[in-house]
Amino acid sequence: MQAMGFDRILGGVCAPDGFLASGVNCGIKDEGRLDLAIVYSEAAASAAGVFTTNQLKAAPVMVSKDRVVSGSAQAVVVNSGNANAMTGDRGLKDALLMIAAAENTLGLEQGQVLVASTGPIGEYLPMEQVMKGIERAASELSPGGNTDAAKAILTTDTYPKELAVEMEMAGKVVRLGAMAKGSGMIGPHMATMIVVVTTDAGLEPDIMQGWLEKAVEWSFNRISVDGDQSTNDTVLMLANGAAFPEGYAMGKGESELFFSALCWITANLSMALVKDGEGASKLLRVVVNGARDDSEAVRIARSVANSNLVKCAIYGGLPNWGRIAAAAGSAGVPLDPDKIDIFLGEHMVAAGGVPAPNDISELVNALKREEVEITLELGLGEGSAFFLTSDLTPEYVRLNASEKS
Amino acid sequence: MQAMGFDRILGGVCAPDGFLASGVNCGIKDEGRLDLAIVYSEAAASAAGVFTTNQLKAAPVMVSKDRVVSGSAQAVVVNSGNANAMTGDRGLKDALLMIAAAENTLGLEQGQVLVASTGPIGEYLPMEQVMKGIERAASELSPGGNTDAAKAILTTDTYPKELAVEMEMAGKVVRLGAMAKGSGMIGPHMATMIVVVTTDAGLEPDIMQGWLEKAVEWSFNRISVDGDQSTNDTVLMLANGAAFPEGYAMGKGESELFFSALCWITANLSMALVKDGEGASKLLRVVVNGARDDSEAVRIARSVANSNLVKCAIYGGLPNWGRIAAAAGSAGVPLDPDKIDIFLGEHMVAAGGVPAPNDISELVNALKREEVEITLELGLGEGSAFFLTSDLTPEYVRLNASEKS
Repeated sequence: MQAMGFDRILGGVCAPDGFLASGVNCGIKDEGRLDLAIVYSEAAASAAGVFTTNQLKAAPVMVSKDRVVSGSAQAVVVNSGNANAMTGDRGLKDALLMIAAAENTLGLEQGQVLVASTGPIGEYLPMEQVMKGIERAASELSPGGNTDAAKAILTTDTYPKELAVEMEMAGKVVRLGAMAKGSGMIGPHMATMIVVVTTDAGLEPDIMQGWLEKAVEWSFNRISVDGDQSTNDTVLMLANGAAFPEGYAMGKGESELFFSALCWITANLSMALVKDGEGASKLLRVVVNGARDDSEAVRIARSVANSNLVKCAIYGGLPNWGRIAAAAGSAGVPLDPDKIDIFLGEHMVAAGGVPAPNDISELVNALKREEVEITLELGLGEGSAFFLTSDLTPEYVRLNASEKS
Repeated sequence: MQAMGFDRILGGVCAPDGFLASGVNCGIKDEGRLDLAIVYSEAAASAAGVFTTNQLKAAPVMVSKDRVVSGSAQAVVVNSGNANAMTGDRGLKDALLMIAAAENTLGLEQGQVLVASTGPIGEYLPMEQVMKGIERAASELSPGGNTDAAKAILTTDTYPKELAVEMEMAGKVVRLGAMAKGSGMIGPHMATMIVVVTTDAGLEPDIMQGWLEKAVEWSFNRISVDGDQSTNDTVLMLANGAAFPEGYAMGKGESELFFSALCWITANLSMALVKDGEGASKLLRVVVNGARDDSEAVRIARSVANSNLVKCAIYGGLPNWGRIAAAAGSAGVPLDPDKIDIFLGEHMVAAGGVPAPNDISELVNALKREEVEITLELGLGEGSAFFLTSDLTPEYVRLNASEKS
């Protein structure tokens, strides 16, 4: 990572200067687990956000999507245990009440708070508890609150996910931090990926929005556990400029370094989400090269990664590459069968569209690894893409066929 | 069915006058199970076909698709145990050899035989066995061979699927017969739905092609077990006119009756395919009404039916309708959340996009049935569609993660 120009550090969303966080239990979840988090910047901050493209957006998504357009925000409130989705006008009102309560308690101007929710769909928020929770979380904000916050946004994830890095820029230390909860790991009526990114770099909102969209495209948009798309997926980013002197603007090299650090964080968090996917026992990386363009490569990679038959084969360690071919061919992208090579790990299993000779036991061994890579070379052009997913296991079905939260 | 103007009869593909069939073991499958079938019309027949849209079409699909354009064929050869897919030029040559062997043995002119294959992808056919099999199957053709033929096309299906009906037309008895093997039930490296329909009605090839396409659209194109699309899906139809006097053409009412009988057969076979899906324990019927048009309704119904989370919920008997909403919203079709009603069986669970009050135990009971219906009323227009699927079970994963054929 040294070679990449940045170093991993501790501290999650609180690693950048001037960020505080907290996580409390306010009673949305039965079991007394943490269920409400606040991430707060002491100074005014630029804001950016990327949201689900699901047509049935949760109330907090509609509200935050609307607000982030202003390009500034100083705090993010996230609750778990209830998605506030399919809740109509009452849900919208509740999301706005959460924002107003946070603005009020934190002494912020209107428009300075964003909100996200994750949990069961189609249930109204217990607003009395939520309002008390916001008050408590605000009073417990601290520079060491990052892990409590990361825990408070979890649903069926098995561990909190946070990352932070630092780099040098113009003689100053600049930091990026983040926390995430599962998407692929869409649980029993859970349906949300939530990510909050913080930085003490100073960034123009428009530039930050562009960078965040690209980083999301190459990370969270390239993962799945079950192909189901949530009503609540939300990625928010705050940049407070605390690391820079007033008015400092990054140069080209600095911008590239910062952007690569942002991409490193989102890529690693997205991999963590897949590995912690429900019932997952293996990580599957599908790589497509030689497509006409990148977007066709993405469609094929996604089709292979979302194929239940491929995911079952990876779970069972079966080198049945015909399933890979069938999934690739059903992506709706024109292909030339005679040009397709397929690899399981480093082993070529199809060459020019026909079977390549192989020692089956070597293939089976290649599939025993915890991380399996499938590569398709299409021979049509320069387009390439990857997609990460987990295997499909009986445990996934059991988890999603039984009631728990 | 009386009320529908036609009656169910026995005899499968041999029920219509002038059709013979056979099924033999030629050694493609190890276990000595039947693996090669011929369906043969004693007289010249019109032909129609509908094929997979997968970009990586199996050799027999390419060959039959090409030949059926002529509008005539007198025999269909089907093998199971090997899909002859991803086999390049050698696969094409093998498919053409199968056709030539059948034409030769049956004494038919060139262009009078169609071929279909089903089984593992990416293996070459054992042509010596196949050629002997075609000879034997031709010599064993009989008016009672329909069930052997239906057995010889199976892969992981648990029982043969055949249907036949008869109706009166112009004082004559007209018959329709069919056999099918699993699609949704895509097995361990199996990947094919094969259907053969026969009739002794006399039909113009173009008209028959149009009817077959519509009947397929409303049946086999509305089912899935795992959403995976095969390299080999093939539906073929032969009409030999044996029931009619030379030159007789159906009137409008007769055409409607015949078409409805054809649709009844394809609909019932498609339902049988889903019920016999791998590991399936329940049939799920997703109905979408009130879409802007039928094609948007199909996209939403397919998205809900192919959602692993919805299928797990049906398996587990969980009334988590939020998963249904999330899947509907991710179909890429614009929706108005405030207009959406969702029903589990007869119970309204969402009204105008928000939760409807319900007795949970009643919902759980509704999901205990072997056939579960989910209905979405979108409130946007007159478009409607249905989609059939099975639940997702640990047994599905186990079957598809272990080696068997």
